[in-house]
Amino acid sequence: MTELDMQQYNVRTDLALEAKEMAEQLGGGGPIPGIHSETSEDNGITITHLHVQDEQGSRAIGKVIGRYVTIEVPALRNQDTELQNRVATQFAKHFETFLERIGVGQTAKVLIVGLGNWNVTPDALGPLVVENVMVTRHFFELMPDQVAPGYRAVSAVAPGVLGITGIESSEIVQGIAEKTKPDVIIAIDALASKSLDRVNTTIQIADIGIHPGSGIGNKRKGLTQEILGIPVIAIGVPTVVYASTIVNHTIELMRSHMEANNGNNDQIFGLMNQMGEAERLQLVKEALNPVGHDLLVTPKEIDEFIEDIANIIASGLNASLHDAVNSDNVAAYTH
Amino acid sequence: MTELDMQQYNVRTDLALEAKEMAEQLGGGGPIPGIHSETSEDNGITITHLHVQDEQGSRAIGKVIGRYVTIEVPALRNQDTELQNRVATQFAKHFETFLERIGVGQTAKVLIVGLGNWNVTPDALGPLVVENVMVTRHFFELMPDQVAPGYRAVSAVAPGVLGITGIESSEIVQGIAEKTKPDVIIAIDALASKSLDRVNTTIQIADIGIHPGSGIGNKRKGLTQEILGIPVIAIGVPTVVYASTIVNHTIELMRSHMEANNGNNDQIFGLMNQMGEAERLQLVKEALNPVGHDLLVTPKEIDEFIEDIANIIASGLNASLHDAVNSDNVAAYTH
Amino acid sequence: MTELDMQQYNVRTDLALEAKEMAEQLGGGGPIPGIHSETSEDNGITITHLHVQDEQGSRAIGKVIGRYVTIEVPALRNQDTELQNRVATQFAKHFETFLERIGVGQTAKVLIVGLGNWNVTPDALGPLVVENVMVTRHFFELMPDQVAPGYRAVSAVAPGVLGITGIESSEIVQGIAEKTKPDVIIAIDALASKSLDRVNTTIQIADIGIHPGSGIGNKRKGLTQEILGIPVIAIGVPTVVYASTIVNHTIELMRSHMEANNGNNDQIFGLMNQMGEAERLQLVKEALNPVGHDLLVTPKEIDEFIEDIANIIASGLNASLHDAVNSDNVAAYTH
Amino acid sequence: MTELDMQQYNVRTDLALEAKEMAEQLGGGGPIPGIHSETSEDNGITITHLHVQDEQGSRAIGKVIGRYVTIEVPALRNQDTELQNRVATQFAKHFETFLERIGVGQTAKVLIVGLGNWNVTPDALGPLVVENVMVTRHFFELMPDQVAPGYRAVSAVAPGVLGITGIESSEIVQGIAEKTKPDVIIAIDALASKSLDRVNTTIQIADIGIHPGSGIGNKRKGLTQEILGIPVIAIGVPTVVYASTIVNHTIELMRSHMEANNGNNDQIFGLMNQMGEAERLQLVKEALNPVGHDLLVTPKEIDEFIEDIANIIASGLNASLHDAVNSDNVAAYTH
Repeated sequence: MTELDMQQYNVRTDLALEAKEMAEQLGGGGPIPGIHSETSEDNGITITHLHVQDEQGSRAIGKVIGRYVTIEVPALRNQDTELQNRVATQFAKHFETFLERIGVGQTAKVLIVGLGNWNVTPDALGPLVVENVMVTRHFFELMPDQVAPGYRAVSAVAPGVLGITGIESSEIVQGIAEKTKPDVIIAIDALASKSLDRVNTTIQIADIGIHPGSGIGNKRKGLTQEILGIPVIAIGVPTVVYASTIVNHTIELMRSHMEANNGNNDQIFGLMNQMGEAERLQLVKEALNPVGHDLLVTPKEIDEFIEDIANIIASGLNASLHDAVNSDNVAAYTH
Repeated sequence: MTELDMQQYNVRTDLALEAKEMAEQLGGGGPIPGIHSETSEDNGITITHLHVQDEQGSRAIGKVIGRYVTIEVPALRNQDTELQNRVATQFAKHFETFLERIGVGQTAKVLIVGLGNWNVTPDALGPLVVENVMVTRHFFELMPDQVAPGYRAVSAVAPGVLGITGIESSEIVQGIAEKTKPDVIIAIDALASKSLDRVNTTIQIADIGIHPGSGIGNKRKGLTQEILGIPVIAIGVPTVVYASTIVNHTIELMRSHMEANNGNNDQIFGLMNQMGEAERLQLVKEALNPVGHDLLVTPKEIDEFIEDIANIIASGLNASLHDAVNSDNVAAYTH
Repeated sequence: MTELDMQQYNVRTDLALEAKEMAEQLGGGGPIPGIHSETSEDNGITITHLHVQDEQGSRAIGKVIGRYVTIEVPALRNQDTELQNRVATQFAKHFETFLERIGVGQTAKVLIVGLGNWNVTPDALGPLVVENVMVTRHFFELMPDQVAPGYRAVSAVAPGVLGITGIESSEIVQGIAEKTKPDVIIAIDALASKSLDRVNTTIQIADIGIHPGSGIGNKRKGLTQEILGIPVIAIGVPTVVYASTIVNHTIELMRSHMEANNGNNDQIFGLMNQMGEAERLQLVKEALNPVGHDLLVTPKEIDEFIEDIANIIASGLNASLHDAVNSDNVAAYTH
Repeated sequence: MTELDMQQYNVRTDLALEAKEMAEQLGGGGPIPGIHSETSEDNGITITHLHVQDEQGSRAIGKVIGRYVTIEVPALRNQDTELQNRVATQFAKHFETFLERIGVGQTAKVLIVGLGNWNVTPDALGPLVVENVMVTRHFFELMPDQVAPGYRAVSAVAPGVLGITGIESSEIVQGIAEKTKPDVIIAIDALASKSLDRVNTTIQIADIGIHPGSGIGNKRKGLTQEILGIPVIAIGVPTVVYASTIVNHTIELMRSHMEANNGNNDQIFGLMNQMGEAERLQLVKEALNPVGHDLLVTPKEIDEFIEDIANIIASGLNASLHDAVNSDNVAAYTH
């Protein structure tokens, strides 16, 4: 299924892992050329390294070429503090390896960007992380000789959203990057997934930056190495599913339900297939009329989930960016 | 359709108006015994007075006996300041009349209760209103002789939710009411509607208090005159639709779509009707598995909508509760 | 110096330790009858156990009879994460001992009360702690059989201040306590100290509850065992000094400065002593005219200090209240 | 008194009006060359137009060359809604005239910058204004043909402070300005005054931009036309007095008190004057030891005052920047 197809199906996901799964399902389950993927599991935490190697792979799953690391922790919504600490430690470890693999050195200056709207709970992930990471750049600027070893220069901003500032977040970040000259940008954003299971249980790290349309917000311009001239690492967590995804899913379920119950009834089978794309889209539109497709589906306890994950990411970033922060006790370094 | 039926259908609404519309639709459109309703329209603002007069009416629409005033303003999401002011003025006028009709006098002491979770944007309506209303009770307590005429004693609390305090909001309110002895409670809560059209465009005023299960939060205990011994007026705004409502709606749409396209095909017709309640519920469950039925559907711009409506309600309350607040310029009295 | 004297001197402190120091200074340095005090120091953390044993001691230092534990950490403003963890652990240990000594058992149900105004940074300590402690009471109420061992029932509320709710915080707490029947109340409040050194570096634990006039807010009613029928433990941190304290301090400094420079000049000496209380108070009033004595002096970085200390207290409370929370890694249990 | 002198006296004020008053007092009350000033009063609102015309005037009062408009409303702390509306209207009128006089046209694109720390109540003025102004730039960018007449392109950002972002606010603003090309910047900042009377009762508008050291924050770099190439208008409100100002004031009061009581006593007079600058500074340092000079003195009710003034400024800006916003009812255009 190409990106075009997926858009038609209105089953939107920001997770490369889900896009690959969907493509495999449609393709009959075999390996997809141009996609390399490896999965390991450790005590409730599943790590997948997915590499979109070329244009063919990119087209096949509708995601840009690059490396994606996905950390899945189904039990993360249980608010188990010990598990959260383990996830922070794993995240720190994998993020550190990720930085090394893409060539970001130990003294590279980092700008952390928290995308999203701090006034909308499921979109507040990025700003929450920014609030909780250690910033150190000003010490390097003001008293470079006195900074203890084991730290690097880290700055952090939450650029807000168009409705709050009147300015594209990418323009704000670009302006700040040109003035402050970081060596790498780490952008944190709330994502949409296809599956409700993955909401608030999954972290994706990717070296692809932020592309127009990704994440919950209406980004019209990207934050990428092409635009900014420095690597842009994206960290994302699905915090919502689009309402249109759920409606489409329901239609699919109903189709298969009826097909299952009337499998060898040619007339029914024909009827099901009669309902073409146009009709299906019309149904989705009616079901969600009139507010459009930007309706978010989110669990009621989103505030607790999002705070927990923001802390995990902030802790993990502190530990992987600063040698002096001990990865055994990363939780202590967030506020 | 009785309340039981509606629960089966999982089409949940906190609006009496929608419940009545659904009941009418199922009943063939005629008047419902025990329900009296009158509607007027004024320059884009539709006001419906709905009276659930007796047990029969109550059973018919699944709402408790009482008076409901609904203010519908389809254009309210456009963020038109002038319209917002008109709505605040209309709300103030109708709320004042409502107070008179249920016998709440001009000097009755008021406790305003903002229900809901301030950390979850669509559930933050009540706390936001509390933040913006004028509180005056302490002046009456500390220097009763110096309070200017035209004011009454108003206090306001946001009791939080179970996950934040560990205590039912109703217990907190009951405790405070017993200590502070208000004459009437006004409880503001975010609601769920059936229709996306009504989200953030509708205000419901009712003299029925807060009942277990109403509103977005998991209230297990109510705030009613029976429990508290004083009238409890509920002000609510639908800020979400439940995901299960949308899934059910989709299934209904698909049924009617197929029926429409194969109207006189007995086999298809039979097939549609074969799918009984159990199967339908199973489909809903699958579509929303595994997070359950408490998924909220909300527009992405919920922060702006909810702030606007909270200001309208706070302004309107200030104007209707205090004679000294001029209803011509109510907006000035909120922060 | 009696309480009366100290009030005349307008040198206000909520710390029993400072009150004792002032009394000793005035008394010539000897022990004060009715006051027992022991101090120990451990790696930068000084712990003082101060016991106001009787009415004589109480009058001498102007503090009510009871036990006070003071934890002083001069380096706490340096934002050293490791030190913060050590302080949290020490606080947990001493608070646990404190609970035992005053007879609060391991299953006693706790209501944590965060006093103060969340909108004023130096007064937001209590609300911040409430936001960060684990609440568990609802699990005990809803599914008592499923709560894991090692936890007790804890609820938490921030009652707000008079200007926000129109209700005394003590009335709100009393109402909630009567409904929810905790066995003990732990009230957290921001305090005023005499010395700027102690601001944001000191934690006081006392078994005396909250008395009218204590803390930053204008409490007119207390939260004490007499009123509530259950023990009330007060945890406080000085986050401000009153402006009048600083003005008085300046006058004293200037007096001693001039006396030092003109020690044996009788005329000057007489002049200094001529300036009686009335004149001095008039000077203070002029220096602070017209806003009055409720001006707060606070460091500009108050937001970081207060967040750090709120986390220390929340972590410490979680560890001392729940056996299951390991006191080795208390930091992990706050959000 | 030159700027140097005032710094020695540690009596810091960000208000040109106060600096002029101090200079007049020291100079014996006559007019100051290079300073032109006119004052008018209207129903409790005093407007002063102060023009620092040349280097001589600038040195005399220690403020940079430029135009300063000061709006003083002693009753503003009384939270009188009607007065607040009148002040918003007056502010709008004078700000509009100010824009015209410095040549900012009706279609000039505006970037509003809210300086300061949103986590510290008295420093949160700028961010609060930004939260409440209308932003419109994105409509002009996305659908220029559909913007109603009477509006101009306005964007707004709160760049945060060094301790939050690790970046100078001026660098952030410069970066954003270079990307988004506004024609004029309006920077809002919380100020320090010399007099407690002026705290939260005074608004200063100036065409001089933001200079290092001005405002509460530790700005080390400015936001000026020289740096940015476009006019920078500064709007400020004193929300604090520095503790050192109050201590110095106390010392002065004590000096004059003693002199008054012993006017013709040569020995005393000599003694007073003996206490030179070094000693005085030492006294100030001792009184405020060890936290340094950055202690803020602020009234306890700062949260209410600052919200009221932020609304006044936001309303006034909306009315003066957009013709379509009627200056008769400006309050309605803030959230």
